[in-house]
Amino acid sequence: VTIVHCPLPVIGIVRTQRTSPEHTPVQAALNRGEHGTLEIAEPYAAGLADLDGFDYVWLVTWLHDHPERPEPPPMTQVPFLLRPTPRRIGVFATRGPRRVNPIGLSLVRLLGVDGRIVRFAGVDMVDGTPVLDLKPYVPAFDRPPGEPRAGWFDDVRPAEGVTPADLG
Amino acid sequence: VTIVHCPLPVIGIVRTQRTSPEHTPVQAALNRGEHGTLEIAEPYAAGLADLDGFDYVWLVTWLHDHPERPEPPPMTQVPFLLRPTPRRIGVFATRGPRRVNPIGLSLVRLLGVDGRIVRFAGVDMVDGTPVLDLKPYVPAFDRPPGEPRAGWFDDVRPAEGVTPADLG
Repeated sequence: VTIVHCPLPVIGIVRTQRTSPEHTPVQAALNRGEHGTLEIAEPYAAGLADLDGFDYVWLVTWLHDHPERPEPPPMTQVPFLLRPTPRRIGVFATRGPRRVNPIGLSLVRLLGVDGRIVRFAGVDMVDGTPVLDLKPYVPAFDRPPGEPRAGWFDDVRPAEGVTPADLG
Repeated sequence: VTIVHCPLPVIGIVRTQRTSPEHTPVQAALNRGEHGTLEIAEPYAAGLADLDGFDYVWLVTWLHDHPERPEPPPMTQVPFLLRPTPRRIGVFATRGPRRVNPIGLSLVRLLGVDGRIVRFAGVDMVDGTPVLDLKPYVPAFDRPPGEPRAGWFDDVRPAEGVTPADLG
Protein backbone atom coordinates (compact mmCIF):
# COMPACT_ATOMS: atom_id res chain seq x y z
CA VAL A 1 0.00 0.00 0.00
CA THR A 2 1.42 3.34 -1.07
CA ILE A 3 1.05 6.18 1.40
CA VAL A 4 1.02 9.75 0.15
CA HIS A 5 2.48 11.86 2.95
CA CYS A 6 1.08 15.25 2.27
CA PRO A 7 -0.01 18.08 4.47
CA LEU A 8 -3.45 19.10 3.28
CA PRO A 9 -4.15 22.79 3.68
CA VAL A 10 -7.72 23.39 4.78
CA ILE A 11 -9.18 25.96 2.41
CA GLY A 12 -12.04 26.76 4.73
CA ILE A 13 -14.41 25.66 7.47
CA VAL A 14 -18.10 24.81 7.17
CA ARG A 15 -20.51 26.47 9.57
CA THR A 16 -23.85 24.73 10.12
CA GLN A 17 -26.32 24.27 12.94
CA ARG A 18 -25.41 20.57 13.21
CA THR A 19 -23.08 19.48 15.97
CA SER A 20 -23.27 15.67 15.98
CA PRO A 21 -22.84 13.32 13.01
CA GLU A 22 -25.63 11.10 14.34
CA HIS A 23 -28.04 14.03 14.07
CA THR A 24 -26.86 15.37 10.72
CA PRO A 25 -28.72 14.47 7.52
CA VAL A 26 -26.88 11.77 5.61
CA GLN A 27 -26.90 13.61 2.27
CA ALA A 28 -27.13 17.24 1.20
CA ALA A 29 -29.66 16.25 -1.47
CA LEU A 30 -31.98 14.98 1.28
CA ASN A 31 -31.75 18.31 3.11
CA ARG A 32 -31.81 20.92 0.37
CA GLY A 33 -33.71 23.48 2.43
CA GLU A 34 -31.14 23.96 5.19
CA HIS A 35 -28.52 26.68 4.79
CA GLY A 36 -24.87 26.73 5.78
CA THR A 37 -21.79 28.80 5.13
CA LEU A 38 -18.22 28.09 4.17
CA GLU A 39 -15.61 30.47 5.56
CA ILE A 40 -12.66 30.45 3.19
CA ALA A 41 -9.25 31.09 4.78
CA GLU A 42 -7.87 34.50 3.90
CA PRO A 43 -4.98 33.33 1.66
CA TYR A 44 -7.45 31.59 -0.64
CA ALA A 45 -10.24 34.17 -0.82
CA ALA A 46 -9.17 35.40 -4.27
CA GLY A 47 -9.81 31.89 -5.60
CA LEU A 48 -13.55 32.50 -5.24
CA ALA A 49 -13.57 34.88 -8.22
CA ASP A 50 -16.07 33.94 -10.96
CA LEU A 51 -17.84 31.43 -8.73
CA ASP A 52 -21.08 33.42 -8.65
CA GLY A 53 -21.97 32.26 -12.18
CA PHE A 54 -22.53 28.71 -10.94
CA ASP A 55 -25.69 27.34 -9.37
CA TYR A 56 -24.10 24.32 -7.65
CA VAL A 57 -20.68 23.49 -6.24
CA TRP A 58 -18.95 20.39 -4.88
CA LEU A 59 -17.46 20.60 -1.42
CA VAL A 60 -14.63 18.13 -0.90
CA THR A 61 -14.51 17.75 2.86
CA TRP A 62 -12.40 16.04 5.49
CA LEU A 63 -14.73 13.95 7.67
CA HIS A 64 -12.81 14.78 10.83
CA ASP A 65 -15.58 13.87 13.21
CA HIS A 66 -15.23 10.11 12.90
CA PRO A 67 -12.01 9.61 14.88
CA GLU A 68 -13.29 6.41 16.47
CA ARG A 69 -12.83 4.42 13.29
CA PRO A 70 -10.23 1.68 13.13
CA GLU A 71 -7.44 2.03 10.57
CA PRO A 72 -8.34 0.88 8.00
CA PRO A 73 -12.11 0.75 8.47
CA PRO A 74 -14.06 -2.46 7.73
CA MET A 75 -14.20 -3.11 3.99
CA THR A 76 -17.88 -4.04 4.27
CA GLN A 77 -20.27 -2.03 6.40
CA VAL A 78 -23.98 -1.59 7.05
CA PRO A 79 -24.78 1.82 5.50
CA PHE A 80 -26.87 4.22 7.58
CA LEU A 81 -29.74 3.87 5.09
CA LEU A 82 -29.77 0.07 5.53
CA ARG A 83 -29.80 0.11 9.34
CA PRO A 84 -33.54 -0.76 9.38
CA THR A 85 -32.87 -3.89 7.28
CA PRO A 86 -29.18 -4.54 8.00
CA ARG A 87 -27.00 -5.74 5.15
CA ARG A 88 -23.26 -5.36 4.68
CA ILE A 89 -22.08 -3.49 1.58
CA GLY A 90 -18.59 -2.96 0.18
CA VAL A 91 -17.32 0.40 1.43
CA PHE A 92 -16.65 1.65 -2.11
CA ALA A 93 -20.31 0.99 -2.96
CA THR A 94 -21.39 3.28 -0.09
CA ARG A 95 -21.28 7.01 0.50
CA GLY A 96 -20.72 6.68 4.24
CA PRO A 97 -18.01 8.47 6.24
CA ARG A 98 -16.03 5.44 7.51
CA ARG A 99 -13.81 5.27 4.43
CA VAL A 100 -10.12 4.45 3.90
CA ASN A 101 -9.65 8.17 3.34
CA PRO A 102 -12.41 10.06 5.16
CA ILE A 103 -13.03 12.38 2.23
CA GLY A 104 -16.60 13.58 1.76
CA LEU A 105 -18.27 14.90 -1.36
CA SER A 106 -21.25 17.21 -0.95
CA LEU A 107 -23.19 18.80 -3.78
CA VAL A 108 -24.63 22.07 -2.50
CA ARG A 109 -26.59 24.89 -4.09
CA LEU A 110 -24.69 28.17 -4.20
CA LEU A 111 -26.67 31.02 -2.67
CA GLY A 112 -24.02 33.71 -2.80
CA VAL A 113 -20.41 34.72 -2.27
CA ASP A 114 -19.75 37.65 0.05
CA GLY A 115 -16.03 38.25 0.43
CA ARG A 116 -14.63 35.11 2.08
CA ILE A 117 -18.08 33.71 2.90
CA VAL A 118 -19.82 31.21 0.63
CA ARG A 119 -23.49 30.75 1.46
CA PHE A 120 -25.08 27.50 0.36
CA ALA A 121 -28.18 25.32 0.69
CA GLY A 122 -27.96 21.59 1.33
CA VAL A 123 -26.47 20.51 4.65
CA ASP A 124 -24.95 17.11 5.43
CA MET A 125 -21.94 18.43 7.33
CA VAL A 126 -21.40 19.07 11.02
CA ASP A 127 -20.29 22.50 12.12
CA GLY A 128 -16.53 22.87 11.86
CA THR A 129 -15.99 20.42 9.00
CA PRO A 130 -12.70 21.23 7.22
CA VAL A 131 -12.98 21.75 3.47
CA LEU A 132 -10.13 20.60 1.22
CA ASP A 133 -11.46 21.79 -2.11
CA LEU A 134 -14.37 23.53 -3.77
CA LYS A 135 -15.16 22.75 -7.39
CA PRO A 136 -17.91 24.14 -9.60
CA TYR A 137 -20.65 21.75 -10.69
CA VAL A 138 -20.52 21.51 -14.48
CA PRO A 139 -23.47 19.58 -15.96
CA ALA A 140 -21.50 18.66 -19.09
CA PHE A 141 -18.89 16.91 -16.91
CA ASP A 142 -20.83 15.77 -13.86
CA ARG A 143 -24.13 14.54 -15.27
CA PRO A 144 -23.97 11.20 -17.06
CA PRO A 145 -26.45 10.51 -19.85
CA GLY A 146 -29.60 8.48 -19.31
CA GLU A 147 -30.78 7.02 -16.04
CA PRO A 148 -27.77 5.33 -14.44
CA ARG A 149 -28.33 2.40 -12.12
CA ALA A 150 -27.38 3.01 -8.50
CA GLY A 151 -27.14 -0.50 -7.06
CA TRP A 152 -28.64 -0.93 -3.60
CA PHE A 153 -29.62 2.76 -3.46
CA ASP A 154 -32.27 2.00 -6.09
CA ASP A 155 -34.10 -0.11 -3.49
CA VAL A 156 -34.25 2.45 -0.68
CA ARG A 157 -36.48 5.51 -0.43
CA PRO A 158 -34.79 7.70 2.16
CA ALA A 159 -36.98 10.28 3.90
CA GLU A 160 -36.22 13.97 3.53
CA GLY A 161 -33.68 15.11 6.13
CA VAL A 162 -33.09 11.63 7.52
CA THR A 163 -30.18 11.31 9.99
CA PRO A 164 -28.30 8.24 11.28
CA ALA A 165 -30.11 8.64 14.62
CA ASP A 166 -33.46 8.41 12.81
CA LEU A 167 -32.35 5.13 11.29
CA GLY A 168 -31.69 3.45 14.61
CA VAL B 1 -4.49 28.33 7.69
CA THR B 2 -5.13 24.98 9.29
CA ILE B 3 -3.04 22.09 8.00
CA VAL B 4 -4.38 18.56 8.31
CA HIS B 5 -1.32 16.31 8.63
CA CYS B 6 -2.59 13.01 7.47
CA PRO B 7 -1.02 10.17 5.58
CA LEU B 8 -3.39 9.29 2.79
CA PRO B 9 -3.42 5.61 1.89
CA VAL B 10 -3.66 5.14 -1.84
CA ILE B 11 -6.51 2.70 -2.46
CA GLY B 12 -5.35 1.94 -5.99
CA ILE B 13 -3.56 3.08 -9.12
CA VAL B 14 -5.10 4.08 -12.45
CA ARG B 15 -3.76 2.45 -15.60
CA THR B 16 -4.34 4.29 -18.87
CA GLN B 17 -2.51 4.78 -22.15
CA ARG B 18 -1.81 8.43 -21.30
CA THR B 19 1.65 9.34 -20.02
CA SER B 20 1.75 13.15 -20.10
CA PRO B 21 -0.79 15.57 -18.59
CA GLU B 22 -0.42 17.86 -21.62
CA HIS B 23 -1.62 15.04 -23.87
CA THR B 24 -4.41 13.75 -21.63
CA PRO B 25 -8.01 14.81 -22.23
CA VAL B 26 -9.06 17.48 -19.77
CA GLN B 27 -12.28 15.76 -18.68
CA ALA B 28 -13.50 12.16 -18.63
CA ALA B 29 -16.85 13.33 -20.04
CA LEU B 30 -15.02 14.63 -23.12
CA ASN B 31 -13.36 11.24 -23.66
CA ARG B 32 -16.06 8.70 -22.82
CA GLY B 33 -14.90 6.16 -25.40
CA GLU B 34 -11.44 5.50 -23.98
CA HIS B 35 -11.02 2.70 -21.44
CA GLY B 36 -8.83 2.48 -18.37
CA THR B 37 -8.45 0.29 -15.31
CA LEU B 38 -8.08 0.89 -11.62
CA GLU B 39 -5.97 -1.63 -9.72
CA ILE B 40 -7.16 -1.65 -6.14
CA ALA B 41 -4.51 -2.49 -3.51
CA GLU B 42 -5.01 -5.93 -2.01
CA PRO B 43 -6.04 -4.81 1.52
CA TYR B 44 -9.00 -2.91 0.05
CA ALA B 45 -10.22 -5.38 -2.57
CA ALA B 46 -13.14 -6.55 -0.40
CA GLY B 47 -14.46 -2.98 -0.43
CA LEU B 48 -15.46 -3.45 -4.08
CA ALA B 49 -18.35 -5.75 -3.14
CA ASP B 50 -21.74 -4.63 -4.49
CA LEU B 51 -20.17 -2.11 -6.87
CA ASP B 52 -21.29 -3.96 -9.97
CA GLY B 53 -24.86 -2.68 -9.54
CA PHE B 54 -23.75 0.86 -10.40
CA ASP B 55 -23.33 2.33 -13.88
CA TYR B 56 -21.03 5.22 -12.90
CA VAL B 57 -18.49 5.88 -10.16
CA TRP B 58 -16.49 8.86 -8.93
CA LEU B 59 -12.74 8.50 -8.74
CA VAL B 60 -11.17 10.84 -6.20
CA THR B 61 -7.58 11.11 -7.39
CA TRP B 62 -4.32 12.65 -6.29
CA LEU B 63 -3.00 14.76 -9.16
CA HIS B 64 0.58 13.77 -8.48
CA ASP B 65 1.89 14.71 -11.90
CA HIS B 66 1.88 18.46 -11.37
CA PRO B 67 4.87 18.79 -9.01
CA GLU B 68 6.05 21.96 -10.68
CA ARG B 69 3.29 23.99 -9.08
CA PRO B 70 4.16 26.64 -6.51
CA GLU B 71 2.74 26.30 -3.03
CA PRO B 72 0.08 27.55 -2.93
CA PRO B 73 -0.81 27.81 -6.61
CA PRO B 74 -2.03 31.12 -8.07
CA MET B 75 -5.56 31.90 -6.88
CA THR B 76 -6.54 32.95 -10.40
CA GLN B 77 -5.45 31.00 -13.45
CA VAL B 78 -6.15 30.68 -17.16
CA PRO B 79 -8.02 27.35 -17.46
CA PHE B 80 -6.90 24.96 -20.23
CA LEU B 81 -10.22 25.52 -22.02
CA LEU B 82 -9.65 29.29 -22.09
CA ARG B 83 -6.07 29.15 -23.45
CA PRO B 84 -7.31 30.17 -26.94
CA THR B 85 -8.92 33.32 -25.48
CA PRO B 86 -6.94 33.80 -22.27
CA ARG B 87 -8.81 35.00 -19.22
CA ARG B 88 -7.97 34.48 -15.56
CA ILE B 89 -10.54 32.67 -13.42
CA GLY B 90 -10.67 32.03 -9.67
CA VAL B 91 -9.19 28.59 -9.02
CA PHE B 92 -12.33 27.40 -7.19
CA ALA B 93 -14.37 28.24 -10.31
CA THR B 94 -12.14 25.92 -12.39
CA ARG B 95 -11.72 22.17 -12.58
CA GLY B 96 -8.01 22.35 -13.35
CA PRO B 97 -5.26 20.41 -11.56
CA ARG B 98 -3.26 23.33 -10.07
CA ARG B 99 -5.37 23.49 -6.91
CA VAL B 100 -4.55 24.18 -3.25
CA ASN B 101 -5.06 20.46 -2.72
CA PRO B 102 -4.40 18.63 -6.00
CA ILE B 103 -7.45 16.42 -5.63
CA GLY B 104 -9.18 15.37 -8.84
CA LEU B 105 -12.74 14.23 -9.35
CA SER B 106 -13.48 12.04 -12.37
CA LEU B 107 -16.88 10.59 -13.24
CA VAL B 108 -16.31 7.35 -15.13
CA ARG B 109 -18.60 4.65 -16.49
CA LEU B 110 -18.17 1.31 -14.77
CA LEU B 111 -17.55 -1.51 -17.22
CA GLY B 112 -16.85 -4.31 -14.78
CA VAL B 113 -15.15 -5.46 -11.61
CA ASP B 114 -12.87 -8.49 -11.89
CA GLY B 115 -11.22 -9.25 -8.56
CA ARG B 116 -9.08 -6.20 -7.72
CA ILE B 117 -9.45 -4.69 -11.20
CA VAL B 118 -12.07 -2.07 -11.96
CA ARG B 119 -12.55 -1.47 -15.69
CA PHE B 120 -14.00 1.86 -16.71
CA ALA B 121 -14.68 4.16 -19.66
CA GLY B 122 -13.85 7.86 -19.58
CA VAL B 123 -10.18 8.78 -19.30
CA ASP B 124 -8.79 12.08 -18.05
CA MET B 125 -6.01 10.59 -15.92
CA VAL B 126 -2.39 9.83 -16.73
CA ASP B 127 -1.12 6.32 -16.17
CA GLY B 128 -0.07 5.82 -12.56
CA THR B 129 -2.47 8.32 -11.01
CA PRO B 130 -3.03 7.43 -7.33
CA VAL B 131 -6.66 7.04 -6.28
CA LEU B 132 -7.72 8.13 -2.80
CA ASP B 133 -11.36 7.08 -2.90
CA LEU B 134 -13.99 5.51 -5.11
CA LYS B 135 -17.63 6.42 -4.58
CA PRO B 136 -20.71 5.21 -6.41
CA TYR B 137 -22.58 7.74 -8.54
CA VAL B 138 -26.08 8.08 -7.09
CA PRO B 139 -28.41 10.17 -9.27
CA ALA B 140 -30.61 11.10 -6.32
CA PHE B 141 -27.61 12.68 -4.58
CA ASP B 142 -25.38 13.81 -7.43
CA ARG B 143 -27.79 15.21 -10.00
CA PRO B 144 -29.26 18.57 -9.11
CA PRO B 145 -32.71 19.45 -10.44
CA GLY B 146 -33.21 21.59 -13.52
CA GLU B 147 -30.49 23.01 -15.73
CA PRO B 148 -27.89 24.53 -13.42
CA ARG B 149 -25.78 27.40 -14.67
CA ALA B 150 -22.09 26.66 -15.06
CA GLY B 151 -20.50 30.12 -15.24
CA TRP B 152 -17.77 30.50 -17.85
CA PHE B 153 -18.14 26.86 -18.91
CA ASP B 154 -21.49 27.80 -20.45
CA ASP B 155 -19.60 29.92 -23.01
CA VAL B 156 -17.12 27.29 -24.20
CA ARG B 157 -17.79 24.33 -26.47
CA PRO B 158 -14.86 21.98 -25.85
CA ALA B 159 -14.11 19.45 -28.58
CA GLU B 160 -14.33 15.74 -27.84
CA GLY B 161 -11.06 14.42 -26.42
CA VAL B 162 -9.42 17.83 -26.23
CA THR B 163 -6.06 17.97 -24.36
CA PRO B 164 -4.08 20.92 -22.96
CA ALA B 165 -1.60 20.50 -25.83
CA ASP B 166 -4.45 20.91 -28.33
CA LEU B 167 -5.36 24.20 -26.66
CA GLY B 168 -1.93 25.76 -27.17
